[in-house]
Amino acid sequence: MINQEFKAMLSGKSVIRELSEYATARGKEIGYENVFDFSLGNPSVPAPQEFTDEMIHLLKDKDPMELHGYTPSLGNPDYKREIAKSLNERFGMNYVPEHIFPTTGAAGAIAHALRAVTKPGDEVMIFAPYFSEYIPYVKQTGVELVIVPADTESFQINFEAFESRITEKTAALLINTPNNPSGVAYSEDTLKKLSDILKAKSKEYGHNIFLISDEPYREIIFDNAKAPYASSFYPHSLSCYSFSKALSLPGERIGYVAVNPECEDAEFIVPMCGQISRGIGHNCPPSIIQQAVARVCNLTSDLSVYETNMNIIYDKLMELGFTCVRPGGTFYIFPKALEESSIEFCNKAKKYDLIFVPGDGFGAPGFFRMAYCIDTDKVKRAMERLEDFVKKEYR
Amino acid sequence: MINQEFKAMLSGKSVIRELSEYATARGKEIGYENVFDFSLGNPSVPAPQEFTDEMIHLLKDKDPMELHGYTPSLGNPDYKREIAKSLNERFGMNYVPEHIFPTTGAAGAIAHALRAVTKPGDEVMIFAPYFSEYIPYVKQTGVELVIVPADTESFQINFEAFESRITEKTAALLINTPNNPSGVAYSEDTLKKLSDILKAKSKEYGHNIFLISDEPYREIIFDNAKAPYASSFYPHSLSCYSFSKALSLPGERIGYVAVNPECEDAEFIVPMCGQISRGIGHNCPPSIIQQAVARVCNLTSDLSVYETNMNIIYDKLMELGFTCVRPGGTFYIFPKALEESSIEFCNKAKKYDLIFVPGDGFGAPGFFRMAYCIDTDKVKRAMERLEDFVKKEYR
Repeated sequence: MINQEFKAMLSGKSVIRELSEYATARGKEIGYENVFDFSLGNPSVPAPQEFTDEMIHLLKDKDPMELHGYTPSLGNPDYKREIAKSLNERFGMNYVPEHIFPTTGAAGAIAHALRAVTKPGDEVMIFAPYFSEYIPYVKQTGVELVIVPADTESFQINFEAFESRITEKTAALLINTPNNPSGVAYSEDTLKKLSDILKAKSKEYGHNIFLISDEPYREIIFDNAKAPYASSFYPHSLSCYSFSKALSLPGERIGYVAVNPECEDAEFIVPMCGQISRGIGHNCPPSIIQQAVARVCNLTSDLSVYETNMNIIYDKLMELGFTCVRPGGTFYIFPKALEESSIEFCNKAKKYDLIFVPGDGFGAPGFFRMAYCIDTDKVKRAMERLEDFVKKEYR
Repeated sequence: MINQEFKAMLSGKSVIRELSEYATARGKEIGYENVFDFSLGNPSVPAPQEFTDEMIHLLKDKDPMELHGYTPSLGNPDYKREIAKSLNERFGMNYVPEHIFPTTGAAGAIAHALRAVTKPGDEVMIFAPYFSEYIPYVKQTGVELVIVPADTESFQINFEAFESRITEKTAALLINTPNNPSGVAYSEDTLKKLSDILKAKSKEYGHNIFLISDEPYREIIFDNAKAPYASSFYPHSLSCYSFSKALSLPGERIGYVAVNPECEDAEFIVPMCGQISRGIGHNCPPSIIQQAVARVCNLTSDLSVYETNMNIIYDKLMELGFTCVRPGGTFYIFPKALEESSIEFCNKAKKYDLIFVPGDGFGAPGFFRMAYCIDTDKVKRAMERLEDFVKKEYR
């Protein structure tokens, strides 16, 4: 008999996918330029030319056996070395290549990190608003998921709720900064306070609580700021990264786990990830992609469009009287809906061909997410439509 | 606390890796041309030029957003269509693209297939001699592993042992044909008999037993033969494939699960694989590799060297009085050692710089594996060394 649990999951529909499919269908009807689709978090700028050049160079000049052969089971040495070097230079860390485990994107990174620092029956905490995929990521690891409700004033951490939910079964936290869907980056203060609580609770319970930091948006930061690097605040930390957003390579599945050198048993965790890979069917990300990204890991696509778009949207939202925390990065913004049910709000917006995602699936009902990884011209036109929508429906 | 189960796995050493590392170290000492390393199953011929050309074409001519963007969660439509078409033409099947789930190689394929058709507590059977990775593949799925001992006369299936071990808890069999390490392809008779037993037992126990067929060596077949396609013999079958061997792309992690259209609940299995991916951190194989392989999936590298090598080795083994089943494909051969302990035999061979792998790790002690994916010249020189070794140690 096929697995009934996975079969049952098929009836759960993905709200984001449904909205995106609706937008595509509607686009066919009235012209795609007339549908303002803010549903999907897909990069809207091309990969840097240097990546393409590096790929072509490898294909033309490198021995194909070496280029396409199995990488060592713990990853391509050049990739591991360049990642460690880059993180050390940028965040003052002390990684060596042995702390870096190459993965198929951040999803692969989180799958390995969760399994490395938990055992079945443990509890893993996530903080609303959260990336909705965290639910299957955590649950399918065989651990209990504990959700900490949002601090909806700031979208930093709701520490009161956090402290009340932490127990001796808490094995790890999974955080996401800069955050999808809120666009907010955790501040230094937040990360310091988080670290202090984790240290105290680790001591109280007699075991270290691990911090898994998912940070695919780390390079998309606004106002010339630098997002604090979560792992630099707490020793028992694993950074999960993907080049999907910064290099606009989401389909190529390239990322890593970086194990803090000061982490408990740091030297075992990457080799353990190699063992975990055997069971979940990963065998390192593609060889050619590891080799190409090793050469361009300090570059990014031209990410400036996201900040341009954010400012246009944020200003218009303010003008129209929305409540909204200004994003510090990413390509998301997460305003409060103009009525209690964000589902109703988004349904009404749909009638104006504005496609927004209700916050319910991100653990923050009453808010809605706009993914503004789209052309700036379209964003500007969408703002006219938004004004029209708000004035007609809510004035 | 880090996961103690995975940590404990670190002390289990990989015999193949140790031998391969020994060969490399020894090569540095006496020159790599003087070490006859038959330990690793890494393709020794380059990928077809058409694959390289296609990759360069995609990089130069395709919109990078489309090329590197997320593929649909159930895979690139061109890849799925071309795989279905190719399998239908070659094996008389009736796949549609919806039966094909792209995966990161065969390891990824098996990880999904196992989870789709079992639940924790079920039993999954494998047949000795088996690919040693099957043990972590199966165990980390959370099911019980049942090993059927080898038919050492033919390396077909030991049906008596099989029938005695099948129970109502048997959810699936995982077979590998053509086989690593034996090089033997299951015959039509074997697959028919297997199918008959599975049908009878499925009826007896009131649930279908699934057949997961791992076939990365399907295209490496000798004597102008065609290996019988396991899925064509039994409806409840999932074929797991990798292009690692046929296209010499092991590092690029590209393969698929093909669900037999006649399989129970066939229409659900690929979408379920999409759900399974969320939990184990896969999100389809790399986009560019799917697109390139879609265009070259009917080609292979020049695989003729493997047959040339096999004939040279097989003839010499016969001449020297070894007992050995002649391989029907792959790049492995699995002779009986000349003493009871194949570990001892391989240790003695090492003194002659002949690197063989004892059969113990493949579930067939007393035999040893030679992977002959190496230059034919070197194979010829190795045969002189083999003769020397056998005459000095066993005459």
